[in-house]
Amino acid sequence: MNFNSASNTDRSLELYVFGENHFEKFHLRSIAELKEKLHPEKKCWLNIHKRNDSTIFHEICQHFEIHPVAFDDIDNLQQRPKLEDFDNFILIVSKMLYTRSDIDQLEVEQVSIAFNKHLIITFQENEYDIFDPIRIRLENPNGKMRKLATDYFVYTLLDTIIDQYYIILELISDQIEKLEDDIISQDKKIELADIYRQRKTLQEIKKNIWPTRELVSAWRKSDSSFVTKKTTPFVNDLYENTVEIIENLEMQRESITTLVEIFMTNISLKQNEVMKTLTIIATIFIPLTFIAGVYGMNFEYMPELGWKYGYVTSWIFFIIVSLVMAIYFKRKKWF
Amino acid sequence: MNFNSASNTDRSLELYVFGENHFEKFHLRSIAELKEKLHPEKKCWLNIHKRNDSTIFHEICQHFEIHPVAFDDIDNLQQRPKLEDFDNFILIVSKMLYTRSDIDQLEVEQVSIAFNKHLIITFQENEYDIFDPIRIRLENPNGKMRKLATDYFVYTLLDTIIDQYYIILELISDQIEKLEDDIISQDKKIELADIYRQRKTLQEIKKNIWPTRELVSAWRKSDSSFVTKKTTPFVNDLYENTVEIIENLEMQRESITTLVEIFMTNISLKQNEVMKTLTIIATIFIPLTFIAGVYGMNFEYMPELGWKYGYVTSWIFFIIVSLVMAIYFKRKKWF
Amino acid sequence: MNFNSASNTDRSLELYVFGENHFEKFHLRSIAELKEKLHPEKKCWLNIHKRNDSTIFHEICQHFEIHPVAFDDIDNLQQRPKLEDFDNFILIVSKMLYTRSDIDQLEVEQVSIAFNKHLIITFQENEYDIFDPIRIRLENPNGKMRKLATDYFVYTLLDTIIDQYYIILELISDQIEKLEDDIISQDKKIELADIYRQRKTLQEIKKNIWPTRELVSAWRKSDSSFVTKKTTPFVNDLYENTVEIIENLEMQRESITTLVEIFMTNISLKQNEVMKTLTIIATIFIPLTFIAGVYGMNFEYMPELGWKYGYVTSWIFFIIVSLVMAIYFKRKKWF
Amino acid sequence: MNFNSASNTDRSLELYVFGENHFEKFHLRSIAELKEKLHPEKKCWLNIHKRNDSTIFHEICQHFEIHPVAFDDIDNLQQRPKLEDFDNFILIVSKMLYTRSDIDQLEVEQVSIAFNKHLIITFQENEYDIFDPIRIRLENPNGKMRKLATDYFVYTLLDTIIDQYYIILELISDQIEKLEDDIISQDKKIELADIYRQRKTLQEIKKNIWPTRELVSAWRKSDSSFVTKKTTPFVNDLYENTVEIIENLEMQRESITTLVEIFMTNISLKQNEVMKTLTIIATIFIPLTFIAGVYGMNFEYMPELGWKYGYVTSWIFFIIVSLVMAIYFKRKKWF
Amino acid sequence: MNFNSASNTDRSLELYVFGENHFEKFHLRSIAELKEKLHPEKKCWLNIHKRNDSTIFHEICQHFEIHPVAFDDIDNLQQRPKLEDFDNFILIVSKMLYTRSDIDQLEVEQVSIAFNKHLIITFQENEYDIFDPIRIRLENPNGKMRKLATDYFVYTLLDTIIDQYYIILELISDQIEKLEDDIISQDKKIELADIYRQRKTLQEIKKNIWPTRELVSAWRKSDSSFVTKKTTPFVNDLYENTVEIIENLEMQRESITTLVEIFMTNISLKQNEVMKTLTIIATIFIPLTFIAGVYGMNFEYMPELGWKYGYVTSWIFFIIVSLVMAIYFKRKKWF
Ligand SMILES: [Mg+2]
Ligand SMILES: [Mg+2]
Ligand SMILES: [Mg+2]
Ligand SMILES: [Mg+2]
Ligand SMILES: [Mg+2]
Ligand SMILES: [Mg+2]
Ligand SMILES: [Mg+2]
Ligand SMILES: [Mg+2]
Ligand SMILES: [Mg+2]
Ligand SMILES: [Mg+2]
Ligand SMILES: [Mg+2]
Ligand SMILES: [Mg+2]
Ligand SMILES: [Mg+2]
Ligand SMILES: [Mg+2]
Ligand SMILES: [Mg+2]
Ligand SMILES: [Mg+2]
Ligand SMILES: [Mg+2]
Ligand SMILES: [Mg+2]
Ligand SMILES: [Mg+2]
Ligand SMILES: [Mg+2]
Ligand SMILES: [Mg+2]
Ligand SMILES: [Mg+2]
Ligand SMILES: [Mg+2]
Ligand SMILES: [Mg+2]
Ligand SMILES: [Mg+2]
Ligand SMILES: [Mg+2]
Ligand SMILES: [Mg+2]
Ligand SMILES: [Mg+2]
Ligand SMILES: [Mg+2]
Ligand SMILES: [Mg+2]
Ligand SMILES: [Mg+2]
Repeated sequence: MNFNSASNTDRSLELYVFGENHFEKFHLRSIAELKEKLHPEKKCWLNIHKRNDSTIFHEICQHFEIHPVAFDDIDNLQQRPKLEDFDNFILIVSKMLYTRSDIDQLEVEQVSIAFNKHLIITFQENEYDIFDPIRIRLENPNGKMRKLATDYFVYTLLDTIIDQYYIILELISDQIEKLEDDIISQDKKIELADIYRQRKTLQEIKKNIWPTRELVSAWRKSDSSFVTKKTTPFVNDLYENTVEIIENLEMQRESITTLVEIFMTNISLKQNEVMKTLTIIATIFIPLTFIAGVYGMNFEYMPELGWKYGYVTSWIFFIIVSLVMAIYFKRKKWF
Repeated sequence: MNFNSASNTDRSLELYVFGENHFEKFHLRSIAELKEKLHPEKKCWLNIHKRNDSTIFHEICQHFEIHPVAFDDIDNLQQRPKLEDFDNFILIVSKMLYTRSDIDQLEVEQVSIAFNKHLIITFQENEYDIFDPIRIRLENPNGKMRKLATDYFVYTLLDTIIDQYYIILELISDQIEKLEDDIISQDKKIELADIYRQRKTLQEIKKNIWPTRELVSAWRKSDSSFVTKKTTPFVNDLYENTVEIIENLEMQRESITTLVEIFMTNISLKQNEVMKTLTIIATIFIPLTFIAGVYGMNFEYMPELGWKYGYVTSWIFFIIVSLVMAIYFKRKKWF
Repeated sequence: MNFNSASNTDRSLELYVFGENHFEKFHLRSIAELKEKLHPEKKCWLNIHKRNDSTIFHEICQHFEIHPVAFDDIDNLQQRPKLEDFDNFILIVSKMLYTRSDIDQLEVEQVSIAFNKHLIITFQENEYDIFDPIRIRLENPNGKMRKLATDYFVYTLLDTIIDQYYIILELISDQIEKLEDDIISQDKKIELADIYRQRKTLQEIKKNIWPTRELVSAWRKSDSSFVTKKTTPFVNDLYENTVEIIENLEMQRESITTLVEIFMTNISLKQNEVMKTLTIIATIFIPLTFIAGVYGMNFEYMPELGWKYGYVTSWIFFIIVSLVMAIYFKRKKWF
Repeated sequence: MNFNSASNTDRSLELYVFGENHFEKFHLRSIAELKEKLHPEKKCWLNIHKRNDSTIFHEICQHFEIHPVAFDDIDNLQQRPKLEDFDNFILIVSKMLYTRSDIDQLEVEQVSIAFNKHLIITFQENEYDIFDPIRIRLENPNGKMRKLATDYFVYTLLDTIIDQYYIILELISDQIEKLEDDIISQDKKIELADIYRQRKTLQEIKKNIWPTRELVSAWRKSDSSFVTKKTTPFVNDLYENTVEIIENLEMQRESITTLVEIFMTNISLKQNEVMKTLTIIATIFIPLTFIAGVYGMNFEYMPELGWKYGYVTSWIFFIIVSLVMAIYFKRKKWF
Repeated sequence: MNFNSASNTDRSLELYVFGENHFEKFHLRSIAELKEKLHPEKKCWLNIHKRNDSTIFHEICQHFEIHPVAFDDIDNLQQRPKLEDFDNFILIVSKMLYTRSDIDQLEVEQVSIAFNKHLIITFQENEYDIFDPIRIRLENPNGKMRKLATDYFVYTLLDTIIDQYYIILELISDQIEKLEDDIISQDKKIELADIYRQRKTLQEIKKNIWPTRELVSAWRKSDSSFVTKKTTPFVNDLYENTVEIIENLEMQRESITTLVEIFMTNISLKQNEVMKTLTIIATIFIPLTFIAGVYGMNFEYMPELGWKYGYVTSWIFFIIVSLVMAIYFKRKKWF
């Protein structure tokens, strides 16, 4: 699931100016450059990565008159996903999930989107993102992104983010199924910690997807002028996606609960087997050892000791007792 | 539960044109043929199976102006059941459950239904379906399907699908009861995996029936002109069916939880029995063995060894101790 | 709880015609007879038992113009309790619970009630019912049933049915308390299956009482002209009854969960006791047996064996070790 | 928490007539006396205890035109707490909790309150109640009870009842904390039954406080003319009290769940300790006993037996093996 | 997290009078002084600490006409957080959490805030508080607190209180993670009590944060004239904070449930290990001991005893049996 593309060059300030018959792309270095390139009648997508240079970040928010509360929400990387309607902008805060090498290192990056009639600004934590397919589709002059309003563009961003949740869930689902197989076949030793690691990842997704559903729900109910009617069926679809992810998530969580139960039962079953082994051996040999002990006693008057077949008889006795015991345990299905 | 009928011939493009006094049936091969056969004043049911030839599928959707979002929902076989009102069509996505040989191989097939005043299109995954009774009833000129509007026809489709849920649930219920009997009688060895397999199937049904209830609920509240008043009591009945299936489902799920509890308790009870066996044998013989060991010691001055009745006395002692112990355990109800 | 009364004669078609100053009772044999006896200005209660003769059943429904959906609900004995308003009738489907000999054989019988301004029809599964007190009260010319509208009569039917739920719950509650006493006193051996049998009965009641509450709630909100204002406080009382039954039910269910917990704990406690017995005996005698074994060794040079008080000393040693061990276990409160 | 006051004399029919400048108190014996003493322009509190004489009870209800449904609710001592608005009266049914000697004998007494503009009637099960502070405050001519409307008086009754819930909860909370300390310190032996007794009391409170909240909520929403605006903030406060009691209750219930968990864990931990003791003793001595047994064998050719230091060597061996084992178990932190 | 500042001098009656171009600070000693200093056209913050002198407290409430119910809420330190709109004041009761030395001693202090257009009164339990940053920001003439209405000031107070919840949760989260590491690594011995202590603290926070959310929600819906439009986005942000705290809290509670599960599993796993050790040792040596016992018997006719290699053979037998057993247990993965 690596989306490492060579084209991931400098994007600290990336600007796309586009319209039905128009497409321009800039890599900017200063706020002055930005002001110059913005086009008041075209749609503009401004993407800010690597927020090291907080001066530029501040200047941009000031220039576009981002409300201080919105500014804090963008700046605070622990912000819960949400949609809030400020007068001049709609602010969407979302969480982009992705994995760099394997699922155990799930990365969560906050992506804030502020948009109005003409402008979409995306604020990311770092340079890496999963929006390359969008960049490519944007160059296609017949694509819906070029023709429809800015909210359709925002929809494609969110759709890309939410589709990634499916992929992550699929990966976890595979790992849970593998754990399930390993536990049931008992070939490989499973640690409870392996199971709980998956649970933690699911908890992380849950924490982000529930407010994302609220976010999309708020979009559907929004009466902002930045929300257009043509985008409605797409947002409805987005909503269905979040519902479906939540349901899949809950099923995975149930599967994990089941896994833990099986794990626990296996411990009990193994202990049962251990106890049976001990009991079978001990209950067979302890009485025999007692009898051997009896004829090891040094009493002067012990008539059996003088018998010719005393020793043979005792062996016959030993063998019969063992067999009877073994049959008894077999009948009780202990082995 | 096999509905394999010999009449299941080629249905890649099946068309029924019908009205109160009209009934025609066609097996088409091309979109051109279709256009020719459609009747603008009769009701038409177009059933598309085996979507191998995706060109025809695309052409049909284009011809009937299916919205791209609806097209995606039909095309994506992981779509969650739902009802959505597009302007020219109402789209219903549902999941048809059936079993080919036994319940452990529950098949789930997506059936999408798009309908308006005159046309019902059903999109299936493969040729097999459970709609043969509907095909037969359609030939009856006095049936409600011939007289009432298209939504009544869609109702019969959904009703057939939902009735199948009852049958599947009944099968699972029987298997759970069998497991219950086996566990309580302890005749047959039950594996936890047997129980969890049923749980998985219930989870699969749950995943599909909850959104189906929402679907029917949306139908009841719909203000579309394709929804007629005469069908209302039937849709209400459908809704009650989904509610009842959900309640049965939850009862089955509770039963399975109970089964797991009994399973676990049985493990504990068996372990208890094993431990008691070991303890009875060990606590009876260990002290006796000690006494035998004592008179096996080689001290020079051990007066008992010279006694005439020493050996007999020790046997009497052994037997009395064993009996006292046995009575003690009997009193404690250990065996 | 047997309501077997000698008067339970033939009731396959029972008709009561009554008004403030009027009371007649008929046992009919045909639909023709029925048509003749019905009185358009009095209130009529038609009770249909033993639906063996399905022709009569069909004819009656046809004669009173029962909607096909309502007919199916009455005919299908697995119908969930509900109230539905058809134009010419209000249909109530309810479940009558009763026990013939003991609680383990809880009987559930579906009673459907269709009523309008003048007519109440009750459809039962079999001849037996719990409505005898109503039959008697109906003969009292000063009773409310004679004076108030048909909905008051329907209220008395439902009230009788719901009161029976209390009685059943009371019986189960007594049995649960008995199980509780038996488990805590540990006099009688309780099987987990005894507990689960009660749980199943509670589940059966739950399945029926929840929709019954919805039914009564729907009645309260009904704007049908067959629902009169004077009956309102009685229906409110009925609603309170269903709520109270549900709460009692949930308390009983909680009690059963507690019972299972105590049952499980008792298993653990008993196992603990078993293990302690084994451990005490084994840890006391195993070291002693070792010592006895040592002096049973046949080394030529073992000075202790020649000592005069060697044997006595070893006994003193055995006794001291045993006492020390016993005191240790006593201090640890193992016995 | 005994409120035994010497003034608890005969109260089978107690009447208070009061107003801003008026206060009279009567102990009546007959309905005739009552009719005479009632004052149509003052506020009257009629308190009926010890309902042995059911004739008087019936006469009073008839005289004040209590609706038959209300009469049943008052008469049925299993009535769920509720507020219901009849035309001439508001009926409140509440449950008064109190303890006579210790918490394990929680008493629940039904107190029904019927009131209108001028009259408050309280129906109690027995003579004892917790309203003495109200009787005293009523004598104070400057108290709000004398100045405000009858609903304020009813508020003080309910407030007194609900405050008692706090006290009971506090008592249980103390006992739970004591159980918690005893379990954790393990000084005193706790039985599971001790814990469940508290759970039962909490369940009893829960059963009564939830409908009491609904009752107060219904009061807040009431549009009856007997409910005055000046009492509103007091009723709001009452509502908050019920919410707080419910939250405390849930916290206590959670604490009990935790207690049970700790109890269970302690059983497991003790069993672990028992098993470790057994295992340490057995695994140390069983191999030694084997060696002793070997040199107790009677083979003619056993060279070690003739060695001078054979016996000493075997003791050295015994001691070394014991020490190695002991160190091994110590390292594994088994003791 | 100690906020001990040297400036925490006498604050039994602290008054701030401020406006856009105005700032005064007083430490008062009497109600007379207070009346003199209050400014009818500026905003005033009156902070009452250390309510030892209840006379002043009463006088102030009387002077500002605090409703008796509000007075009780402020006075009762067990009051549940809430917002209530009295006519002349809005009353907010909140709980300030802080830790003095370590998390195990979480302090909860009730802070009641009464405010209207011109006046904010804060009632604290004791002198210590976490409002020093607010005192400092108040001196800044360009701060929002100086420019916006009193409700913004109240917002900053609540915001400071709620931010502290985050810090406390963070601390607990760290401790839970430490417990998790300790349990999984099994280096340090964890007691169940350590886990439950964290659970109790979370329960304490839960008890306070849920009603705080209701409080903020009530603020959002308030139509009081003391609530200004400019403060709305800040209160929305506050609401989001409470939601986020609740979600974090629930995640921590889930983590603790998981911890308890792992703890329990570890007990089982350890017991399993103990049992295996016992079983391996016992099942290897018990049969050997039996054989040694056999050749310790004193039968006169035991041919093996006379064999030259009898003793050596028996040792070979002992070793082979041990090895076979060891391989068997190794194969079963018992060690
Ligand atoms: Mg924020
Ligand atoms: Mg982030
Ligand atoms: Mg939320
Ligand atoms: Mg979906
Ligand atoms: Mg669901
Ligand atoms: Mg679920
Ligand atoms: Mg879709
Ligand atoms: Mg499918
Ligand atoms: Mg859903
Ligand atoms: Mg139904
Ligand atoms: Mg239900
Ligand atoms: Mg259920
Ligand atoms: Mg039906
Ligand atoms: Mg029935
Ligand atoms: Mg329902
Ligand atoms: Mg009730
Ligand atoms: Mg309840
Ligand atoms: Mg509950
Ligand atoms: Mg009642
Ligand atoms: Mg009572
Ligand atoms: Mg309730
Ligand atoms: Mg309160
Ligand atoms: Mg609350
Ligand atoms: Mg709670
Ligand atoms: Mg709960
Ligand atoms: Mg209060
Ligand atoms: Mg406080
Ligand atoms: Mg709460
Ligand atoms: Mg937030
Ligand atoms: Mg959540
Ligand atoms: Mg949660």
